[in-house]
Amino acid sequence: MSAATPAEMQPDPSLMAREAMALVADLATISDEPGRLTRLYLSPAHRRAADRVRERMEEAGFATSIDPVGTVVGRYEGSRPGMPALLLGSHIDTVRDAGRFDGTLGVAVALAVVADLARRNLRLPFAIEVLAFGDEEGVRFPSTLAGSRALAGTFAFSTLAECDADGIALVDALRDFGCDPSQIPAAARGRQDVLGYLELHIEQGRVLEHEDQAIGIVSGISGAMRLGCRVEGVSGHAGTSTMQDRYDALCGAAEMVLAIEEIARSRGHVVATVGRLAAAPGVVNVVPGGVEFTLDLRTIDDVERCQTVDEILRRCEGIARGRGLGFEHETFYDQPTTFCDAALKTILAGTLARFGLAPLELQSGAGHDGLAIASLCPIAMLFVRCKDGVSHHPDEDVSGEDIIVACAVLAHFIEALEPESIKYRCSAHHDGNASASRA
Amino acid sequence: MSAATPAEMQPDPSLMAREAMALVADLATISDEPGRLTRLYLSPAHRRAADRVRERMEEAGFATSIDPVGTVVGRYEGSRPGMPALLLGSHIDTVRDAGRFDGTLGVAVALAVVADLARRNLRLPFAIEVLAFGDEEGVRFPSTLAGSRALAGTFAFSTLAECDADGIALVDALRDFGCDPSQIPAAARGRQDVLGYLELHIEQGRVLEHEDQAIGIVSGISGAMRLGCRVEGVSGHAGTSTMQDRYDALCGAAEMVLAIEEIARSRGHVVATVGRLAAAPGVVNVVPGGVEFTLDLRTIDDVERCQTVDEILRRCEGIARGRGLGFEHETFYDQPTTFCDAALKTILAGTLARFGLAPLELQSGAGHDGLAIASLCPIAMLFVRCKDGVSHHPDEDVSGEDIIVACAVLAHFIEALEPESIKYRCSAHHDGNASASRA
Repeated sequence: MSAATPAEMQPDPSLMAREAMALVADLATISDEPGRLTRLYLSPAHRRAADRVRERMEEAGFATSIDPVGTVVGRYEGSRPGMPALLLGSHIDTVRDAGRFDGTLGVAVALAVVADLARRNLRLPFAIEVLAFGDEEGVRFPSTLAGSRALAGTFAFSTLAECDADGIALVDALRDFGCDPSQIPAAARGRQDVLGYLELHIEQGRVLEHEDQAIGIVSGISGAMRLGCRVEGVSGHAGTSTMQDRYDALCGAAEMVLAIEEIARSRGHVVATVGRLAAAPGVVNVVPGGVEFTLDLRTIDDVERCQTVDEILRRCEGIARGRGLGFEHETFYDQPTTFCDAALKTILAGTLARFGLAPLELQSGAGHDGLAIASLCPIAMLFVRCKDGVSHHPDEDVSGEDIIVACAVLAHFIEALEPESIKYRCSAHHDGNASASRA
Repeated sequence: MSAATPAEMQPDPSLMAREAMALVADLATISDEPGRLTRLYLSPAHRRAADRVRERMEEAGFATSIDPVGTVVGRYEGSRPGMPALLLGSHIDTVRDAGRFDGTLGVAVALAVVADLARRNLRLPFAIEVLAFGDEEGVRFPSTLAGSRALAGTFAFSTLAECDADGIALVDALRDFGCDPSQIPAAARGRQDVLGYLELHIEQGRVLEHEDQAIGIVSGISGAMRLGCRVEGVSGHAGTSTMQDRYDALCGAAEMVLAIEEIARSRGHVVATVGRLAAAPGVVNVVPGGVEFTLDLRTIDDVERCQTVDEILRRCEGIARGRGLGFEHETFYDQPTTFCDAALKTILAGTLARFGLAPLELQSGAGHDGLAIASLCPIAMLFVRCKDGVSHHPDEDVSGEDIIVACAVLAHFIEALEPESIKYRCSAHHDGNASASRA
């Protein structure tokens, strides 16, 4: 392919970026729905995308496999076979009507960067595994992160019985995909076999755009709480119940939605969202007798998150009392903040400095596979600027220039990495499991 | 059956009430859904209920038929065959999980009162027809009042192609029921053949309860407007879009719901209801980018109704502007107020006075078959007190004492009626078609 011997070649971020963008474009054509990009966990499109990624890995010379929960694994050995591995990657499942970069960019950049190592036949003092997880968005099944949990040895076997909207159980979807669920325990990695996990992902926000920088270092993944709330009123005839005689659950819920917005706005880094709201019976001429809505609340500060939820619930209870309505809530998801590893962040800051970039830290409001992998090894994340902060939407966009920077930074980080520095952190990590103490 | 010759017997409201309550109880067992009362237009339960009503009419000696849109008709001739008829009745379809009295009580009381005339072989100077309409609730098909519209000659033939939730067209449902849709034009009555229409119905409100009276006279059926509203925002990731960067359509819609409530409360007799509201995409971790909701607005004053809708729309547009959201609306139903006939109301007031009852007038917030029949002949309605104003709910209840009063009032009204007084009104009615001028 080139006149120079592979080992003498320099890394070529432009080439890597072209390859990464080609794979992103390629995967954007693989969808479960015509006319828009939707690739749900274990769907036919997921299967085709996984095969495509694996094919690219094979071409690059990696040893490949698809693990028992559908994660595509491409291993590039270090200077000796069987050395502990640096894990790179992201996910290839999408939301419905998705953009092409969320998840996919991280897989494509990691693959291109490691393919460049392989092209130069450059062996490092550690192995590298490029991972393409399949269950990050959590759209199809009630639970999520099957891939990273299986890898971390924390897969919840009870979720195998959970069903999608068509009544298909996860265990059957896995078998249809070609996986053997009985082998899930074998997918778990030993701590001695991994150095750490680094995921590159689009920011899905506007901090980097405001700071005018292509790439930033993630400080941590915000904890999140999700609650199901229920407002109980009395349904009535829209024409015959006077305004005074009503116990309208929707009017009560509307007050609550506005109170939630006001409370979140009044606190610094809290985001609170009522994403789903349904009024029952939901008929044009019936006063709603019941409303169910969800609350999603996130901030990197675990204490503030709990305080905010308390304040919101007190306000909702007060609103319900004032209107003679009932109010109930249930927390169905409660994830503390996961902090990124301090040593990895320091190394990344050094790498950014090499490229004249500020060691900009930003928090991730979105969840990522690192949430699960943090129980196995130190994790780090790089965020890449995305246009207008738009994500989970066909307009999602990342500039070609920024992808070149991302490839250059990731390539430099990998080649400069001394496994001892992480190994030390890795042992420290294993001594204590309170991720917050590593902030 | 009795030692006295029929013509000498006195009307027996207690017997009529027992018969009416027996039929109500009987029909309450005929449902499309096990464990709850649901009898949708042209369903198998509707067919069985129609047959049961017809059977009772036959037993009472009426000439019976089921018309081409499923209305059960029982005719009791006057002193000569073929005289113009007083129309009595209500509907026997129900909402889902209904109470047993809505509609059915009016059919059962009319049937029992006229059966009592037949038992006494008392012939009046007019015929009476007892009608059991089948399409008042409008639950199954998009359009409603097929029975009363066909009778009034205003059936909309375009609705024959409309489908229910299972994709069954009205025309096919009619055929399955045993009707011949090609005969619908023949169901229309001539103006010379009808004297007027009187419907007895449960109040579905609490005015009579507050006034402590069993029965009241309906002044008119409130006009109603129904609008579909759409709030357009920008969907975003619940974790990554800051509170400042959001265009949350649900927060905007919540403000609108509260504004609608406030405006309706600030005006006298207006009721406004947001019955259906759906946020899209409706996912726990996505900021809603769009909301659709319905608005149902009623009052007996047609001018005030239009003014109120204008005020609401201006407020909604202002809320949308303030939040950078889009707002669109569409009126999909616009029914002016239908006033009850003044002469019939006067006769009813006299009847109530005979029983020591005040000539209490109250408006109907709910729609009724009279809406359609008003274009054919003068209409009137009597409301019967129902417990706590509860309707469209299994707890719907009417006391046995009140049903006796209802039977007594209706029987007395019929026997005291001089057809000339209505006939005069009837001609007046035909001269002018602006029902509002008869208020």
